[in-house]
Amino acid sequence: MTTTQVTLVQIDNYGPWTVTPEPRREMDLQSLQSRLFADVAEFLGHRDGYAFATRFDNMIAVTNGVDGDAHATLQESIGNRYPVTVSLGTAVCDRPVDALEAANERLQRAGSAQDEARTEVLAGEYLTETTPTDVQIAHFDVVNVTGKYTDRVNEFDTFTTITRAYASLMEHLRERHGALSFFVGGDNVVAVCPDLHEAAFADAVDYVVGDVDVELQVGVGRGESAHEAGFAAKHALEDCRHAGTAVELFGVPAASD
Amino acid sequence: MTTTQVTLVQIDNYGPWTVTPEPRREMDLQSLQSRLFADVAEFLGHRDGYAFATRFDNMIAVTNGVDGDAHATLQESIGNRYPVTVSLGTAVCDRPVDALEAANERLQRAGSAQDEARTEVLAGEYLTETTPTDVQIAHFDVVNVTGKYTDRVNEFDTFTTITRAYASLMEHLRERHGALSFFVGGDNVVAVCPDLHEAAFADAVDYVVGDVDVELQVGVGRGESAHEAGFAAKHALEDCRHAGTAVELFGVPAASD
Amino acid sequence: MTTTQVTLVQIDNYGPWTVTPEPRREMDLQSLQSRLFADVAEFLGHRDGYAFATRFDNMIAVTNGVDGDAHATLQESIGNRYPVTVSLGTAVCDRPVDALEAANERLQRAGSAQDEARTEVLAGEYLTETTPTDVQIAHFDVVNVTGKYTDRVNEFDTFTTITRAYASLMEHLRERHGALSFFVGGDNVVAVCPDLHEAAFADAVDYVVGDVDVELQVGVGRGESAHEAGFAAKHALEDCRHAGTAVELFGVPAASD
Amino acid sequence: MTTTQVTLVQIDNYGPWTVTPEPRREMDLQSLQSRLFADVAEFLGHRDGYAFATRFDNMIAVTNGVDGDAHATLQESIGNRYPVTVSLGTAVCDRPVDALEAANERLQRAGSAQDEARTEVLAGEYLTETTPTDVQIAHFDVVNVTGKYTDRVNEFDTFTTITRAYASLMEHLRERHGALSFFVGGDNVVAVCPDLHEAAFADAVDYVVGDVDVELQVGVGRGESAHEAGFAAKHALEDCRHAGTAVELFGVPAASD
Repeated sequence: MTTTQVTLVQIDNYGPWTVTPEPRREMDLQSLQSRLFADVAEFLGHRDGYAFATRFDNMIAVTNGVDGDAHATLQESIGNRYPVTVSLGTAVCDRPVDALEAANERLQRAGSAQDEARTEVLAGEYLTETTPTDVQIAHFDVVNVTGKYTDRVNEFDTFTTITRAYASLMEHLRERHGALSFFVGGDNVVAVCPDLHEAAFADAVDYVVGDVDVELQVGVGRGESAHEAGFAAKHALEDCRHAGTAVELFGVPAASD
Repeated sequence: MTTTQVTLVQIDNYGPWTVTPEPRREMDLQSLQSRLFADVAEFLGHRDGYAFATRFDNMIAVTNGVDGDAHATLQESIGNRYPVTVSLGTAVCDRPVDALEAANERLQRAGSAQDEARTEVLAGEYLTETTPTDVQIAHFDVVNVTGKYTDRVNEFDTFTTITRAYASLMEHLRERHGALSFFVGGDNVVAVCPDLHEAAFADAVDYVVGDVDVELQVGVGRGESAHEAGFAAKHALEDCRHAGTAVELFGVPAASD
Repeated sequence: MTTTQVTLVQIDNYGPWTVTPEPRREMDLQSLQSRLFADVAEFLGHRDGYAFATRFDNMIAVTNGVDGDAHATLQESIGNRYPVTVSLGTAVCDRPVDALEAANERLQRAGSAQDEARTEVLAGEYLTETTPTDVQIAHFDVVNVTGKYTDRVNEFDTFTTITRAYASLMEHLRERHGALSFFVGGDNVVAVCPDLHEAAFADAVDYVVGDVDVELQVGVGRGESAHEAGFAAKHALEDCRHAGTAVELFGVPAASD
Repeated sequence: MTTTQVTLVQIDNYGPWTVTPEPRREMDLQSLQSRLFADVAEFLGHRDGYAFATRFDNMIAVTNGVDGDAHATLQESIGNRYPVTVSLGTAVCDRPVDALEAANERLQRAGSAQDEARTEVLAGEYLTETTPTDVQIAHFDVVNVTGKYTDRVNEFDTFTTITRAYASLMEHLRERHGALSFFVGGDNVVAVCPDLHEAAFADAVDYVVGDVDVELQVGVGRGESAHEAGFAAKHALEDCRHAGTAVELFGVPAASD
């Protein structure tokens, strides 16, 4: 069984700020958002967590092994260096979506994302112990994306194809398993999973090819942290590339749900 | 009629680099990609262009008014400050998708995105004159996203809803009009359009609500550059918010295609 | 004769901000300051200007060729992306120090650097024409710094030696010629000069060796912008390294003051 | 007695890289160096360390409490995100300068800073235990710098005055006590000290006023880490500002050497 610690990072009252006193230049906002995400990714990544940009004003992170003090440091540091502040809600559950739901509720109960008075909430529970198989990560990519798409069709149509495949996969894994999947650039999708066995990944690959006709491959890993699980998944995905297989597991216990 | 200058920014041979000699830490890649995009967005934004992250290893930009020298400066600066280099293809056409297609072909003809020997291509044609209505931008967002989604459901499900609406909109505007639409965070989508009149935007809003049941509103602007058009669109979108209308046009000539 | 456009970039009311409501973490301040300087250096550098960190809360830039609109864009972009704002004063004179003095007075007349109400001043005059020899830059470094210092003594003592040499050089060139010299890392000092001939540089090298016993070499360049002059100076300094000479001039007119 | 862990961060073979194949644009180098320092400051700062830019190609850090794994993570992350790599040497001693000397020797013994084959050295000893008084930090600034200098004279002359005061202080504290002092922007100098009592700081203030006629004040703190000691020092310096005193100690044991 997995144990996933999820943190929701939410910029406080961001929407109103972007248009006050009048709309701010879009590229300044893009630069601000991307650098803020980069800082969060680096901070958590250096502690073996994973952060995903999602909507940029709301970011989802897997933070097994990152304690409350570290969350407080991240929040303080952003407040010191940006014109905006962030709230952080954290929770722990077996299934990633349940952990997110609980983390999210901690912020929602504190007030609206657009409530001026609700700033720098820091609410959460943090794992005090970790085990070597707490986190399961699946790293998907598109088979031969460069040959089939990047070098042949225009980038927007390639991007549309990738988006379609990602949307199909994210909904399938969310509905069927409570997994959280994130597009991370190129042709890569990282899925934070509950305890899934090999057949579930083969099914997901089949589902996407049937749904939107895009062929995926996937490496799966387990670990004490998002980084450990994700790193094992990356190595397993390298095995797919070399062996031409669709699913490879690395360090995933044989018997699972 | 619009005249759109589009630049494709492509990281050279990026996929292989990310796994050589073995896979690199995912959060380091996320930080690298986000900061590279932020630099591109800032560089072009300060010259009144717009850049979109798309797949991060390939970024699409609207660069009316940014000349070849500036493109060369951007390329050199990235080469000096990052462990990767970029190729830039630029082209000009009425319809955004046609401009992208031509820009993209300039790189594809020079070699594969994963050809080690094809680095720092700088190929393009650049506008030598601009007119005040060259670019048309539509800025969409979701009606009452905070009340309906952010404050009520978990962030992943909100993100899924936004992604679904975005995918529906991007495909509709691409197929019907050759427009290029990009999710820019929060609940915002920026569409780079050919010369479209008000009915086309009302149709798009209707299409998305019918297709995926998400209610959008849209502000539309014209300008000499992406920033000018996009800034007018942002102001028009503010008008939607205040007036409760679904489509507002700002500085868009009455008679259009 | 040189014509130097100098811009003073001053963070508004920064000192009080760093200790309100209580002192902020020093490393957050260091990160904020360094990234703000990096943004300024990139923005101006991409327009062929030079920016120097000096005290970080006050930065001095050589901005020949950068107009008032670009200065306004820089100011707006910083205001959108940082928790602090900046004021910009710009002026043009033959001698660098006189240009700085005039630029600085534009801000001082507007109010104190720690006046809460004096924010985002944008005051200046900008060159409307440039000539190929407007700017003279000298790029100094220490002869064999790695062999003599970096590889032999501890870094702090090396740094002390470099600081002593820099302090000696900066005061000499300031008093004698009204030049502005800046340490730019490693063993490098960049001096923004009035119209000086070769003997003045040979004198400066002699002065420093006599004053603090550190042996310098220097390349000198002229150009339409800081970058052009500085780039020529860098090439000239390479000539010093290869030829073992103390002073090399590149593109500097023979007859000068 | 203090116990100081010092890390030397040295960019590998940086000098040659900056001029290969020909000199790189100075502002790209400035941006690169500043962002690299910002990343180091943030990484170590979030672990309660302090980093100082010094020469940018060589940075000195106080890293009590930061273990070998964290150093390895920092090194790997920089290697993944920059076009240059860094070597890290770490050592522990009572006196800061002795710790630096030992840290530095670990790199020097491994090869020259400009040896192409000597890259990513990671050599050091790390504290396994910390005590609440291991680090002593003194935070100096100039009395009424804004009124006396910033608002009255030009920025270069202010900077020259600050540099002169800093050079005087750094040499005094280095020679007399083996302390390492760093200018950190504005009018601030942070000194990493051995176990010094109040009189030593009063002497330092007197020395600088006598040597270069600049009046300083100083807050001093002790702590388990650079941040703790430095934060106490900042609070003590606030006390100087409010009380008009020249030296304030905070949390520094009464009986010291």
